[in-house]
Parts: sequence; C-alpha cells; structure tokens
Amino acid sequence: MIDGEVVESEGLRYTPAGIERVVFKLRHTSMQQEAGMQRQVQCDIPALALGEAAQQVSRVQLGQQVRAEGFLAQRSLKIAQLVLHIDNVTLK
Amino acid sequence: MIDGEVVESEGLRYTPAGIERVVFKLRHTSMQQEAGMQRQVQCDIPALALGEAAQQVSRVQLGQQVRAEGFLAQRSLKIAQLVLHIDNVTLK
Repeated sequence: MIDGEVVESEGLRYTPAGIERVVFKLRHTSMQQEAGMQRQVQCDIPALALGEAAQQVSRVQLGQQVRAEGFLAQRSLKIAQLVLHIDNVTLK
Repeated sequence: MIDGEVVESEGLRYTPAGIERVVFKLRHTSMQQEAGMQRQVQCDIPALALGEAAQQVSRVQLGQQVRAEGFLAQRSLKIAQLVLHIDNVTLK
C-alpha cells in the first residue's frame, strides 16, 4: 500500500484482448525513519492498472492524492524496471 | 511488506559516516490476481539496508527466504530506479 499523487497518465486504453488499461506514474513523498534518522523520500513509481482498477484510475484527475494497493512486477521478462500493478485506488 | 529470496549481496560495508550498509537484491515470486486472472509475478528488487537493518541482512544467507518491511525510494536524485530501503527483515 502506498500513497501518492497521480502524475502523468496515458488515459484509458485497451489491451489487444479488450481489457481496460491505464499506464501512469505515482509520485510518492513522505518522511521515513532510517538508521535512526529522519529522511525525506520522493520517488516517481511507474504504475499500471488493468480491468476494473484501470476504470478507477481513469476517473482520477492528475494531481489527485490517492492511496494505492497492488504488487510489484518487472516491466517485462527482459526489462527489469519495477512497475507497480494496481489492484485498488482510493482518493485521499 | 514483501517476501522474497536474498540473491546477490555485497555483504556488510560502511558509509563514510561509519553506518553499516548492505546492498542486495530480493527476488520476489508470487501468484497475483489481476483483472480477474491469476498471474505469476517474479521480480528482482534492488534493496538497501542501513544501520541495524544492515546487520540483520548481513546475517542472512544467500538463497534464504525472508519477509522484508521498508519503503521505496529513488536510487538518487538523478537516477529514478526504485530501491527498496529495508527497515526490518525476518526469516521465513
């Protein structure tokens, strides 16, 4: 589960099999404790939503803060980049 | 929180400030539900542990299954690659 702001979204598209698909980025900013020190964290997380989750994401406006649940996977067999696959988003 | 196998570890080193530091990879494999279908997920997640967490990780053998807790951050200001910063690992 991770909180972030929806930045950059390709909007609702469809896979060749006709499943709804949204590719977007989630900008996460927080303070975290690490080795006894407070630190700021910011990262842009590549994210992908399919099916019902894609419909949810497509209704979210750019700049909106959301809480996202999902799982990490590699972008493809050959590309090791991590992509957050979204199961569920809720507005914050 | 994510489960995975510790693969590749540089072993215990120290930051210039003398804080323990371990850079390693966590290989995550699971089945996930996505858009109503079961899918297999495998990804190698770059991971970093500092301080006490680094001591914990340094005692874990390669190939060991662990449960890791932490947060995602960018590798650096300029490199957007995601790195999992470890707060805590437990053996599985």
